[in-house]
Amino acid sequence: MRPGDHRVCFVGDSFTQGTGDAAGLGWPGRVAAAARAAGYDLTAYNLGVRRDTSADIAARWQTECDARFRVACMPYIVFSFGANDMTSDDEALRVPIPQSVDNFLKIVGDAKARCRTLFIGPLPVGDATQDIRIILLCATYRVLARELGVPYLPLAQDLAGDPAWARAVAAGDGTHPCGDGYARVAARVINWPAWWFSAPASAG
Amino acid sequence: MRPGDHRVCFVGDSFTQGTGDAAGLGWPGRVAAAARAAGYDLTAYNLGVRRDTSADIAARWQTECDARFRVACMPYIVFSFGANDMTSDDEALRVPIPQSVDNFLKIVGDAKARCRTLFIGPLPVGDATQDIRIILLCATYRVLARELGVPYLPLAQDLAGDPAWARAVAAGDGTHPCGDGYARVAARVINWPAWWFSAPASAG
Repeated sequence: MRPGDHRVCFVGDSFTQGTGDAAGLGWPGRVAAAARAAGYDLTAYNLGVRRDTSADIAARWQTECDARFRVACMPYIVFSFGANDMTSDDEALRVPIPQSVDNFLKIVGDAKARCRTLFIGPLPVGDATQDIRIILLCATYRVLARELGVPYLPLAQDLAGDPAWARAVAAGDGTHPCGDGYARVAARVINWPAWWFSAPASAG
Repeated sequence: MRPGDHRVCFVGDSFTQGTGDAAGLGWPGRVAAAARAAGYDLTAYNLGVRRDTSADIAARWQTECDARFRVACMPYIVFSFGANDMTSDDEALRVPIPQSVDNFLKIVGDAKARCRTLFIGPLPVGDATQDIRIILLCATYRVLARELGVPYLPLAQDLAGDPAWARAVAAGDGTHPCGDGYARVAARVINWPAWWFSAPASAG
């Protein structure tokens, strides 16, 4: 293994995938490019899938990460999900809160046992009723992450009240922002003390 | 389903992943951005995995594409692999040619039976001996693709003899090119008559 061979799987939903971003980078592409600019040898695997709930992610994250971490490398996983759990289909939530909590604990607990893990809280979708549910789920997940000892970056409440975010969503597809919105999320991640690749990489 | 909801899975190895590209787009990110600029509503899933052979891809492509095509959408798959089959580990090829041929026929045949499918031939790696094997495998795959009726874009021979490609690889990591190299591949794909998203999308 080359000593600095960092490989990061970003596992999440459409906001991780970068839906609405004409450049196709999303926030994972932007934080990865910034890490490379800071001198890190970083490979980013974007495993965001549109419409995925915590249940969908529970079913696939391990197999997909295994296929990408088979080689000797320094593995990392960044999760971000929850918004689609709070979608109401035929009156019921796609994933009820107790199940969403169980999925979070299982996914993030298992990931933390195998490699460095972070969680970026779910993002608001621009629907007032659903966004309230997402903000509450974000707060619940935050407590769970603290119990697991996994750093957690809450974003839903701040972004739901941020006019710049609303403008980016209006310029995107009405649910997802254009690139400007993803750049705002990326800046929050890069400036977060828990983020692994903010300080310039040491030479050597 | 929105009528123009195009979703493309790019399934391949490190050259599909975009290894060596500081921007992290690779050629799939560039062809996807060009399609969006031409007016297509296009979601790109980059399923390139470093070091993957045809055998590795045979084991994962269906599960990974299934997870991304669960929703109603227009699905497409673009494959590109073969270079890692031709790596010599301990004197033997990682995947012997008869097995590589079988993998190609199974993967591409099964994909074509389910959705629109293209194949971008394997890329050269900058090692003269291996590149000769890759060029021969590329020619073999091309014949197989014709038998299957799947459009195939051969690139290995042209790129291996192209000084601009060699400069891009030298500016990359010595095996993979920097972004300029990926831009050259993207241009070849976009100008290829078989590519689905070159003409401007019709309004409405």
